[in-house]
Amino acid sequence: MPTLPPALDKLAALLARLPGIGERSATRLAFHILSEPRGYATELSRALDGLGTSVGFCDDCHMVAEGADCKVCGDPSRDSTLLCVVEGIPDLLAIERTGTFRGRYHVLHGVLAPLKGVGPTQLRLGNLTSRLERDGVEEVIVATSTGVEGEATALYLARLLANTGMRLTRIATGIPHGGDLEYIDATTLGRALDGRRPLDA
Amino acid sequence: MPTLPPALDKLAALLARLPGIGERSATRLAFHILSEPRGYATELSRALDGLGTSVGFCDDCHMVAEGADCKVCGDPSRDSTLLCVVEGIPDLLAIERTGTFRGRYHVLHGVLAPLKGVGPTQLRLGNLTSRLERDGVEEVIVATSTGVEGEATALYLARLLANTGMRLTRIATGIPHGGDLEYIDATTLGRALDGRRPLDA
Repeated sequence: MPTLPPALDKLAALLARLPGIGERSATRLAFHILSEPRGYATELSRALDGLGTSVGFCDDCHMVAEGADCKVCGDPSRDSTLLCVVEGIPDLLAIERTGTFRGRYHVLHGVLAPLKGVGPTQLRLGNLTSRLERDGVEEVIVATSTGVEGEATALYLARLLANTGMRLTRIATGIPHGGDLEYIDATTLGRALDGRRPLDA
Repeated sequence: MPTLPPALDKLAALLARLPGIGERSATRLAFHILSEPRGYATELSRALDGLGTSVGFCDDCHMVAEGADCKVCGDPSRDSTLLCVVEGIPDLLAIERTGTFRGRYHVLHGVLAPLKGVGPTQLRLGNLTSRLERDGVEEVIVATSTGVEGEATALYLARLLANTGMRLTRIATGIPHGGDLEYIDATTLGRALDGRRPLDA
């Protein structure tokens, strides 16, 4: 079987390390990049180099930032008494898209997953309690995902912050908007029933 | 809504141009690359640069090659009288994995798709007829895909080579190995019936 040029193999192997991209997809992507005008590979290469020089993380909320200038923490119109804890930056962006949350965030960059070797020290938790005190936070909304690992992380945070006297809340689990009860899994439906709210006339 | 640093946005926009990767996946990949140890982005950047300097295409069969050294065309044990025409390099590699084909290839780098502006001049067809003569090819196997565009390309090749007196064949369409007739689409099943072969005892 003819082998591919090492440079192409190398690129495919690196692309296969990205989440959701298997070996065959990676080879296909490598061929696609090769078939594009040469400028594309060069631009992509420059963009990757650019990450190292201009993108960092905020020391407070751990959101991506340019240098020390965090767009969220630096916004004086945001309510500093309300803090939303999320697993990752895509989750933060998803909440921002709702347009309903005006507090600040704390990005954990992961969830507790003992089987994958992720414990509390692997999460960006070090400055959380000091931040709560310093900023006069009154409510912490735990918006980790609603699967096993997200729930375990929520429970860990509940215990960690139990003695701070702070209001600690969890985003609601229930039927998605427009959802059809017939097709919803039993766990979600059960939680939706547990989490029922008074219906105002 | 907080905007992402431009370097990250730029990387996501470039990744979104890859096939099968939408805007949201591209953003997720960009974050993943950012969260990896810095060496990964650097390696990927170098690999992209490496494409330009060390990978090219064979002038004869249009397979990827290092410099002028094509692994397939340069293999003297291959049967030069048998030529298999494929759409892309992944198809060539798939045929090689079967281990049953010992002829040479001709990679079109596309299929005829008038609606997408791909005509015969966009395919690597320029040297096909001269190659057939020079190499003493006796049979051309058209192994383009079996969808509408692949079939149209096969028909085009049939007309192009009609007067060469060469044996022209098409890979078989039929039930995949292990396939269950009950679940096979009607077109495939119809073609499998049309393409029936004598059953030897």
